[in-house]
Amino acid sequence: MTATVANPLERLTEVLGDDMGRVNALIRERMASENAPRIPEVTAHLIDAGGKRIRPLLTLAAARVCGYQGDAHVKLAATVEFIHTATLLHDDVVDESGQRRGRPTANLLWDNQSSVLVGDYLFARAFQLMVEPGNLRALSILSNAAAVIAEGEVLQLSAAQDLSTDEATYMKVVRGKTAALFSAATQVGPVIAGADETVVQALFDYGDALGICFQIVDDFLDYGGAGAEIGKNLGDDFRERKLTLPVIRAIAMADAEERAFWERTLGKGVQNDGDLERAMAILTARGTLESTRQTALDWANKAQAALNALPAHPMRAMLIELAQFVVRRAS
Amino acid sequence: MTATVANPLERLTEVLGDDMGRVNALIRERMASENAPRIPEVTAHLIDAGGKRIRPLLTLAAARVCGYQGDAHVKLAATVEFIHTATLLHDDVVDESGQRRGRPTANLLWDNQSSVLVGDYLFARAFQLMVEPGNLRALSILSNAAAVIAEGEVLQLSAAQDLSTDEATYMKVVRGKTAALFSAATQVGPVIAGADETVVQALFDYGDALGICFQIVDDFLDYGGAGAEIGKNLGDDFRERKLTLPVIRAIAMADAEERAFWERTLGKGVQNDGDLERAMAILTARGTLESTRQTALDWANKAQAALNALPAHPMRAMLIELAQFVVRRAS
Repeated sequence: MTATVANPLERLTEVLGDDMGRVNALIRERMASENAPRIPEVTAHLIDAGGKRIRPLLTLAAARVCGYQGDAHVKLAATVEFIHTATLLHDDVVDESGQRRGRPTANLLWDNQSSVLVGDYLFARAFQLMVEPGNLRALSILSNAAAVIAEGEVLQLSAAQDLSTDEATYMKVVRGKTAALFSAATQVGPVIAGADETVVQALFDYGDALGICFQIVDDFLDYGGAGAEIGKNLGDDFRERKLTLPVIRAIAMADAEERAFWERTLGKGVQNDGDLERAMAILTARGTLESTRQTALDWANKAQAALNALPAHPMRAMLIELAQFVVRRAS
Repeated sequence: MTATVANPLERLTEVLGDDMGRVNALIRERMASENAPRIPEVTAHLIDAGGKRIRPLLTLAAARVCGYQGDAHVKLAATVEFIHTATLLHDDVVDESGQRRGRPTANLLWDNQSSVLVGDYLFARAFQLMVEPGNLRALSILSNAAAVIAEGEVLQLSAAQDLSTDEATYMKVVRGKTAALFSAATQVGPVIAGADETVVQALFDYGDALGICFQIVDDFLDYGGAGAEIGKNLGDDFRERKLTLPVIRAIAMADAEERAFWERTLGKGVQNDGDLERAMAILTARGTLESTRQTALDWANKAQAALNALPAHPMRAMLIELAQFVVRRAS
């Protein structure tokens, strides 16, 4: 650990560097396809764009904190990253996105067809990988997560543009699109290590709360963060008419004029110059950006509290720091 | 068995009726989603359209011919149908199809987004289902098949419009898009029954050859069959510029004028009234429809021969009849 290592995520990446190197090698090996060269082309575009690999890191950390000594964590960590990459490819088709991690999306560089089919290939590769360690409970956790993810994405699709979307629906979407894979990533660690059920539950709860926090921060940043930092444009959710937490709360408080504004811009999708700025002004005036930030902080605290069930371990301290770091992005 | 039961597929459906009833009930149960009602809507549209359920029937038949007595075959048969349904949803997005099984496609009735995400949900449900019986070899077979399917679809995408596509590439596409799921469907039967390796191999070979035969017949019918019978329009492959066996063989024999025709219609995608008729006339004159039919017949015979390794059993006779029936569609 050197003085130049700046934040908890980077420190985690460094401490788990050997394992992460094996995960990256495995990802590279399994994204190959002798028969269809387009597959590694499309996948490499996304994999090389330098995501933070937070999900596989969580699996490695959760196995490490339980003293796991085998090899299965590397395969399961690669599984988790493949599932994540597959959902990114399909999300960009669904959202008709043009930018991801600061680069043009695969659907723009190739076509929607390639994104759909290469996503399917990565899903299938993920399932092949998760089968290899032969742990049926880990298989069950990861295949359940895949179903919850897809369900959350469909729910988000039907909830978009629907001004009656409430916080309960928002939470279901967030658990589906983000927290399900975070909690599966952390839960399989203790499962393959054969840890106590209290530890399995604690790491599930940590991943669940961290994932919810992560997504709420993301939704906050879409109206308040710097585009360069998060690799997407400010206001993407507004343009895609997604009902996220700051907006749901502002709609609940809206006066007649504000309600008409949300109806037009999100309900009907009629958006003009200056509308994003007006949306941000309403969210600020109604205090819902601040309350959203506070909700993210609550979830970071829940994530941290879940780890109290774990014995003292250097990795436990790092996971606590990680939760604080995730919410700090919104400060 | 009554006199009104007309063909081997219907006879198989009748003999396996009890098991198939349980498969259909399981499919209905697992396609539900409490959180996202759009999922069962989209799925029911496809499931109710009355596909022949040939793939789950193969799993049930393969388990039955090996004397299997447990419950796993029902779950694996439903798995196979879910994988198939998921690929249909994604195929229709990729092909921009408007019709499937004689009805408007889901991407037309809802939107591409729903088709992509509901397909993902069905893939995930398939993986949940295949995990439940806890047979690691069956898991490995089915997850490998899913990867080969996706690879075949990507390969087909890059091979479309490419006049240099040869028969070897065509066979890879056919094995991917069709035979991989047929052979996985038949192979998991003996695997869960704990049958001898010779029987496992025989049923794999049968499914592989039957699937190849099935796809070649489908590609033949696209230039020669009645649209009503196969539920798609005559000439779909031509319009989608797919390089199928009759065309690949005709291009290999083409004179300069024919070559220019294929270059324009399939290579460049410039198609005018009368081009489909001209294509069919060339395929007939070059004898490639007839040679394609003969190749399908060869594969049906290979499927039948594979079953020689099995002990005599009424179900073995029905599987032999099924192979003959599949190729008879092209007569």
